Amino acid sequence: MDIMSGMKRTGYCGELSLEDIGKEVVLMGWVQKSRDLGSIVFVDMRDREGVCQIVFDETINQNLFVKSQELGSEYVIAVKGIVRERASKNPNIKTGDIEVYASELRILNKSETPPIYIKDDDAVSENLRMKYRYLDLRKPKMQNNFILRHKVTQIVRNYLSDNGFIEIETPILGKPTPEGARDYLVPSRVNKGSFYGLPQSPQLFKQLLMVSGMDKYFQIAKCFRDEDLRADRQPEFTQIDCEMSFVEINDVLDIMENMISKILSETLDVNISLPIPRMTYKEAMDRFGSDKPDTRFGFELVDITADAKTCGFGVFESAANEECKSVRGINLKGYEASFTRKGITALEDVAKTYGAKGLAWIKITEEGVTSPISKFFTQENLETIINKLEGEKGDLLLFVADRDKVVFDALGHVRIDAAKKLDILDENKYNLLYVTEFPQFEYDEEENRYVAMHHPFTSPMDEDLELLDTNPSKVRAKAYDMVLNGVELGGGSIRIYNSDVQEKMFNLLGFSKEEAWDKFGFLLEAFKYGTPPHGGIAFGLDRLVMLLAKQDSIREVIAFPKNQNAICPLTNAPGKTDKKSLDELSIAIIEKN
Amino acid sequence: MDIMSGMKRTGYCGELSLEDIGKEVVLMGWVQKSRDLGSIVFVDMRDREGVCQIVFDETINQNLFVKSQELGSEYVIAVKGIVRERASKNPNIKTGDIEVYASELRILNKSETPPIYIKDDDAVSENLRMKYRYLDLRKPKMQNNFILRHKVTQIVRNYLSDNGFIEIETPILGKPTPEGARDYLVPSRVNKGSFYGLPQSPQLFKQLLMVSGMDKYFQIAKCFRDEDLRADRQPEFTQIDCEMSFVEINDVLDIMENMISKILSETLDVNISLPIPRMTYKEAMDRFGSDKPDTRFGFELVDITADAKTCGFGVFESAANEECKSVRGINLKGYEASFTRKGITALEDVAKTYGAKGLAWIKITEEGVTSPISKFFTQENLETIINKLEGEKGDLLLFVADRDKVVFDALGHVRIDAAKKLDILDENKYNLLYVTEFPQFEYDEEENRYVAMHHPFTSPMDEDLELLDTNPSKVRAKAYDMVLNGVELGGGSIRIYNSDVQEKMFNLLGFSKEEAWDKFGFLLEAFKYGTPPHGGIAFGLDRLVMLLAKQDSIREVIAFPKNQNAICPLTNAPGKTDKKSLDELSIAIIEKN
Repeated sequence: MDIMSGMKRTGYCGELSLEDIGKEVVLMGWVQKSRDLGSIVFVDMRDREGVCQIVFDETINQNLFVKSQELGSEYVIAVKGIVRERASKNPNIKTGDIEVYASELRILNKSETPPIYIKDDDAVSENLRMKYRYLDLRKPKMQNNFILRHKVTQIVRNYLSDNGFIEIETPILGKPTPEGARDYLVPSRVNKGSFYGLPQSPQLFKQLLMVSGMDKYFQIAKCFRDEDLRADRQPEFTQIDCEMSFVEINDVLDIMENMISKILSETLDVNISLPIPRMTYKEAMDRFGSDKPDTRFGFELVDITADAKTCGFGVFESAANEECKSVRGINLKGYEASFTRKGITALEDVAKTYGAKGLAWIKITEEGVTSPISKFFTQENLETIINKLEGEKGDLLLFVADRDKVVFDALGHVRIDAAKKLDILDENKYNLLYVTEFPQFEYDEEENRYVAMHHPFTSPMDEDLELLDTNPSKVRAKAYDMVLNGVELGGGSIRIYNSDVQEKMFNLLGFSKEEAWDKFGFLLEAFKYGTPPHGGIAFGLDRLVMLLAKQDSIREVIAFPKNQNAICPLTNAPGKTDKKSLDELSIAIIEKN
Repeated sequence: MDIMSGMKRTGYCGELSLEDIGKEVVLMGWVQKSRDLGSIVFVDMRDREGVCQIVFDETINQNLFVKSQELGSEYVIAVKGIVRERASKNPNIKTGDIEVYASELRILNKSETPPIYIKDDDAVSENLRMKYRYLDLRKPKMQNNFILRHKVTQIVRNYLSDNGFIEIETPILGKPTPEGARDYLVPSRVNKGSFYGLPQSPQLFKQLLMVSGMDKYFQIAKCFRDEDLRADRQPEFTQIDCEMSFVEINDVLDIMENMISKILSETLDVNISLPIPRMTYKEAMDRFGSDKPDTRFGFELVDITADAKTCGFGVFESAANEECKSVRGINLKGYEASFTRKGITALEDVAKTYGAKGLAWIKITEEGVTSPISKFFTQENLETIINKLEGEKGDLLLFVADRDKVVFDALGHVRIDAAKKLDILDENKYNLLYVTEFPQFEYDEEENRYVAMHHPFTSPMDEDLELLDTNPSKVRAKAYDMVLNGVELGGGSIRIYNSDVQEKMFNLLGFSKEEAWDKFGFLLEAFKYGTPPHGGIAFGLDRLVMLLAKQDSIREVIAFPKNQNAICPLTNAPGKTDKKSLDELSIAIIEKN
């Protein structure tokens, strides 16, 4: 007889409430905790939806009571019983008003003492958690993270589907990309010496789907990148990938902000007002020193370059008078007293991390201006600068003078760091923002050439097309990012859809015509046969769910993540293979001496 | 200015009807065909949803008319105009009642003459279709296939989600499986000499998710198998993968037949009655010679072994008197006249393909019995056998005498082949069936050991547990397949959930304890900590959609398939990589001499 025979589950532990009083229920789940009080055994029984209390009473059923005494932690059980109101309620759990008076108990499986506790706040090492991931995932927090992730993908799929998008799967076994360093490679057995590349994104395929008239495509797609796993990256990650034909920038932004709004409202009951603000890249840098500004707080950058040209302070003056350099400051309004000298030094360290040589500061205290640099200024110049930053009693002003890039980076990060230290980041605030008009190119100092800031398929803005030939660094792209509280949720662009423009782009990026055709010939060829204008966007699903779940790492929302050495501590992947398999692939391992 | 500016699409070409008469519409799409009648140009304009006729009239707008004369095949255009009723309607197309009188035309992109025609019945080579897949996918049939595929996955996701299943992604970069020959391998850069394996299925991970209490899991999962691509296989394919905790066989069958029923009703408007029939493996073999019987027609197998023991015909007699051999026949009722000698020889060739030495036959014609074997029988024996098959005038009886396996295989395939030749397979009939109680093991003659018929994680039937030690070949498994019209849609099982039974199973399959722990240690370990009873199923999505779309190959429902050499003719994947990349991976290509 099957161990499940005759026991039909009626619902989940975590769903029972006062409304179920008097009902006979059948529950299946795990023993969270068991307390033997001599003539009565209380068991906290857990399933995906929560915990409820089961009572085994010696005076009612002697055999059942004795059997319940056997139960250990994480035993798997089926219980039949009647729901009744608890004498002493427990307001700390959802089902604290009720308990189930057991009339039948079936032990479905036993458990050895688990190596980690099944509770949210168990402080064990990350590695142990990942080795016993199947136990770690039993924690209520983890179960909720995956229920949330599922909800988000369902909302996305239904929303896009309702809006005419078709989900189409693109290949995982693709072609290695030209700058292959970041591709995972898969040796082909049938085509010896050749390799598939795992996709870093479905970019080319989704553009081809637009060429093929699929009109609106999406995919929740696995992507792969073989890079060093600093900063909470994973070798495989998931994108919400979209592409639309016959659109301009605002069409994409409109449909995607509605999607995010729906996700926030249906998962967190957070309602945002639409449209979400649009801000150009230039404005984002000027005001926040970042292309993904956190707009939940102020401390905006102020440009004092003009005033610094003859201010008397050599460091400011020399920066203010050089091209591509500037002097900017932020005002930590009202927080003068929150930063000691030591505190300011800590902020300066942040600035230095991003290349600044120092962080100049002016405190405006009850007693007046305190500052190591004030002595270099005339009183008038000092006042001009303070006024420019709207400095008042109680404020702390911070300055960096350097190359623009360094100034933005340093002050942008000091701004965030200060806000974190002041604990003024409201985690219940959801400040969404579109950043637009990104530069088309970045100049790569090492390679001494332009590289695409988004990717080589991004269309320049029409009004900047002529600058392609004269001043590429000034060309703005039809590219956009969606930003939430200072984190990039996703980005995309309107694409080039014309063979000639695409070839010109490759040329500007340093590909010869031959190289371009060798590497992207199929796309350039496709563009000849009636390619519609198109554009799209991709969101990082892992990061989005992490933010919604208020978690610190994407590993909390990936069921079986790899560790920082790209190893799965549970299965020990990657693993060894045998020589026969390698021979079939015509490859060999090169041992290092 | 963006080329799309000021043109807001109002809908799709294929959606217009008489209800839209008088409306101003903006359409975007491709020039399917253009006919210049001198003072009027008719353009068939196509988008994802269909085709409609656009009219450019010289007498109304001279400039527009001249511009429309430029239009070539596959030009991408935007058209504004008024919908009006056609003077001469075209009943062959959906929008044949209307046309759009153009007031504005924008040429969004031109097209060179495409290398293949954009029409369903264009007879070009498979390779050319795949090289220009982006054009091939413009064909209405292909567009509909992918719209259908999208619908099916949406129905599946919403159905499972509504029934408490959570979609959880499992890793693509997994551990190579022990019998690694069919795994695609991915060399690890960080862990030199080690390889990830791409999953053939998420089997182990989904079982671990049950151990982790996720309760009900699903995933529409990419799977990979590096095998020779005969018989319409692809290196990567997609499964609808499900697993449930606390279930016995019928729980799984119930929920899955409801899913399939929903798919059939919502995509094809086909309503099937539930529950779908259940049939044991033994009955399926006995009646249809197949574990995936097509029950749309009769011609069932009849066992005449008992009657053949002393029938007088040596071939029958010797098979009938040996163990594991039998004599069986089928009656092609009423189709005697449809098979000439040559026709019967063709059927015999089918039987021989599956190992039979011949196909004995008896025709019952107007003139009486004709048969090359009847002379060997006494009249009484002949009548007994004919009666057993319910032979009557007009029937053709076919027999095979051999080992059971050969008899089933040969007659099972002759049965299908005959039905195909007779064209009696009703393609509007959807005969669903569950086949249950599969054997746990098959004996592998080559390896001289038992192998798992489903996989090593399948639970034996409780009543057969003791046979594990005494007679493994008789053990039936808690395994099941869903079959549609003779094609396996999916299969699954209730799993072993106990360390000891799982170890015993590995042992029976020829693994030493050490090997078993080395290879599946993490699963055996997991089973110790409270594993719930669980089971699941996986459906082949590609094949399911292929059947629903009435296509002959899964390549018709995969956007960018590989060819029979595992090459993508569009992108030329797999491709070469550079030595630097290989060096980083510490591998080298071994050149064959």
